[in-house]
Amino acid sequence: MKNLCLLGATGSIGEQTIDIVRKNSDKYNLVAVAANRSVDKIINIIDEFKPNYVAMWNEEAYEEILKYVKNKNINVTVLKGMEGLITISTLREVELVITALVGMIGLEPTLAAIDANKDIALANKETLVVAGELVMRKAKEKGIKILPVDSEHGAVFQCLQGNKHKAVNKLILTASGGPFRGKTKEDLEKVTLKDALNHPNWNMGPKITVDSSTLMNKGLEVIEAHWLFDCDYNNIEVVVHPQSIIHSMVQYNDNSIIAQLSTPDMRLPIQYALNYGERLDAVIEELDLCKISTLTFEKPDLETFQCLKFAYEAGKKGKLMPAILNSSNEASVDLFLKSRILYKQIPEIIKECLDKFDYNKEVTLSNIIEIDKEIREYIYSKYNN
Amino acid sequence: MKNLCLLGATGSIGEQTIDIVRKNSDKYNLVAVAANRSVDKIINIIDEFKPNYVAMWNEEAYEEILKYVKNKNINVTVLKGMEGLITISTLREVELVITALVGMIGLEPTLAAIDANKDIALANKETLVVAGELVMRKAKEKGIKILPVDSEHGAVFQCLQGNKHKAVNKLILTASGGPFRGKTKEDLEKVTLKDALNHPNWNMGPKITVDSSTLMNKGLEVIEAHWLFDCDYNNIEVVVHPQSIIHSMVQYNDNSIIAQLSTPDMRLPIQYALNYGERLDAVIEELDLCKISTLTFEKPDLETFQCLKFAYEAGKKGKLMPAILNSSNEASVDLFLKSRILYKQIPEIIKECLDKFDYNKEVTLSNIIEIDKEIREYIYSKYNN
Repeated sequence: MKNLCLLGATGSIGEQTIDIVRKNSDKYNLVAVAANRSVDKIINIIDEFKPNYVAMWNEEAYEEILKYVKNKNINVTVLKGMEGLITISTLREVELVITALVGMIGLEPTLAAIDANKDIALANKETLVVAGELVMRKAKEKGIKILPVDSEHGAVFQCLQGNKHKAVNKLILTASGGPFRGKTKEDLEKVTLKDALNHPNWNMGPKITVDSSTLMNKGLEVIEAHWLFDCDYNNIEVVVHPQSIIHSMVQYNDNSIIAQLSTPDMRLPIQYALNYGERLDAVIEELDLCKISTLTFEKPDLETFQCLKFAYEAGKKGKLMPAILNSSNEASVDLFLKSRILYKQIPEIIKECLDKFDYNKEVTLSNIIEIDKEIREYIYSKYNN
Repeated sequence: MKNLCLLGATGSIGEQTIDIVRKNSDKYNLVAVAANRSVDKIINIIDEFKPNYVAMWNEEAYEEILKYVKNKNINVTVLKGMEGLITISTLREVELVITALVGMIGLEPTLAAIDANKDIALANKETLVVAGELVMRKAKEKGIKILPVDSEHGAVFQCLQGNKHKAVNKLILTASGGPFRGKTKEDLEKVTLKDALNHPNWNMGPKITVDSSTLMNKGLEVIEAHWLFDCDYNNIEVVVHPQSIIHSMVQYNDNSIIAQLSTPDMRLPIQYALNYGERLDAVIEELDLCKISTLTFEKPDLETFQCLKFAYEAGKKGKLMPAILNSSNEASVDLFLKSRILYKQIPEIIKECLDKFDYNKEVTLSNIIEIDKEIREYIYSKYNN
């Protein structure tokens, strides 16, 4: 039995992780869960899995859960805020922390968990984007594992099995291209919120769905892949593959490419990460390639989807540039989801911040938090009209 | 330096193996080579690689080579016939025998090499088809390696790296479909020798090119895969993939599929086998998926291409049935290449032999040789008009 702490238990990845835990109840024990404000879902988790700890980010939600467990006389410790997240990520009995929080809020608890020698199943890509250097250095020092949960990085993880790191020529991350594949810059000026939330292949949370439509999601994954697999940016390629069947590939020095294919279902990479790269019986449907019949590939259009280009540039500059990229993206996508800015403003605001803020500082937790605060204040004060 | 013996040095696989040896002259030493009758090519090999032994199958070719080395005063032992093949396959200094002979003539020297504790890089698929049980048992007893050289089995070999045998759900062998993909049984009645030798993707020898057009090549590969990877026939699937970019796949118990892709170039699997599954720097061109743009997949048409169906049936029946399948295929393809029979007669003659000959005998070298002789005599006397 492996003792798990699940951060972000009620989001899309969190719920699918819960499904894996449910289907492998002989292997996993859910010791602690955290969520933002989804009280009903957390109550269901408390009733079904009887975790020892629950942390709620939102104060009111915390109060409600507290009331519920008192009334029902349930033996569970209820915590709140960042302190709650950090407490449950560092519990002595926890062996693996699954970070499925959305945005860079995942950074502090992840660093705390690594300090406390916990292995990490990382679904929160922002953590490595803003602090890859710091996180990977700490992970190496502590000898803990960072297991990728993204479908692309999970695919790369699988394609690397049995091969040597020095034999890797390049990583080929696939991108569905999102709902706006083939569109021009002009087309994107008319995009509505509803359009952007309509992803062709994956059913995901709203923030990542918008990121997927701008290709920023792929950009963040390029930076994440750089840190996870110790691979130069020049050796990370993005290929648009609209069917989302090949989840990523590795090209080796002999020009052989190993690819991972499956039906698009996040439970596969979650399961693979939770079991440390050992395969368990299928929870996802079998792929029928003859039924799918056609797989296509094309180069990404970096002029229309500038966010991907920005991500490569930020990654290569390094230091705080990826943090600036991520914070400005989080803030502008949030404003877009609240209908305060237009879709086409997302890359414009990001570009403005990349040019405006000073990235040439050491990658420390306090520097990252400080610049994040500055960028959010700047964007919200200027654009939240 | 690894000491190599190359059987079938002047055929398509042999020449590509020579190219790998040439490009890795610090790794490989060509100690012995064998060919059928290609005197000029063997002379070139003698001049370039200075092997210690040469074996010629054809008597006249043997005499010519003997004369050449005497005249030139070259220090090389020249041998002939099956005795020559067996002698060079079992030389004390040889570590790896590459069997790139065409047809079941490869069986005896392969068995002799295994008995002499040589690892085998197997490009001669007929060996495992007719005597898989015997060869794999001997290989296991001797603790030697059988390294696959076929592009499909080489792909499976790569896709299995870092995974456990018990996690394998099924092998998916890809088939280009050959030049007659999409044709009907009626269309195949008009096929000429020239049509059959016109393979869309691979440049191979004439026998394997015809086998590829009838899908018998894929059938033989199914049987070969059964033995190489210890996989039930019900868990070996054939998918037609006309672009020949994905060379084969493995589906695991978690419904994840690992696939191997590259430009279609046999030098990749040859190189991978020769280096025991460790990657060396590329000799083949890089794959540009965006340029290729589209990969397609379809089910094979077992009614039109009956040879593939026959192979599954023969494999499942076991004992001498795969040997009957192979011998009747070798003889009828030979007659077709000599324009003695029509294309559509190839499956008809094979079916006749599968029904006629008694397969229920132990898989021993003498039984295989005996039934092969009987079948050839039967087919040549009846159809060689």
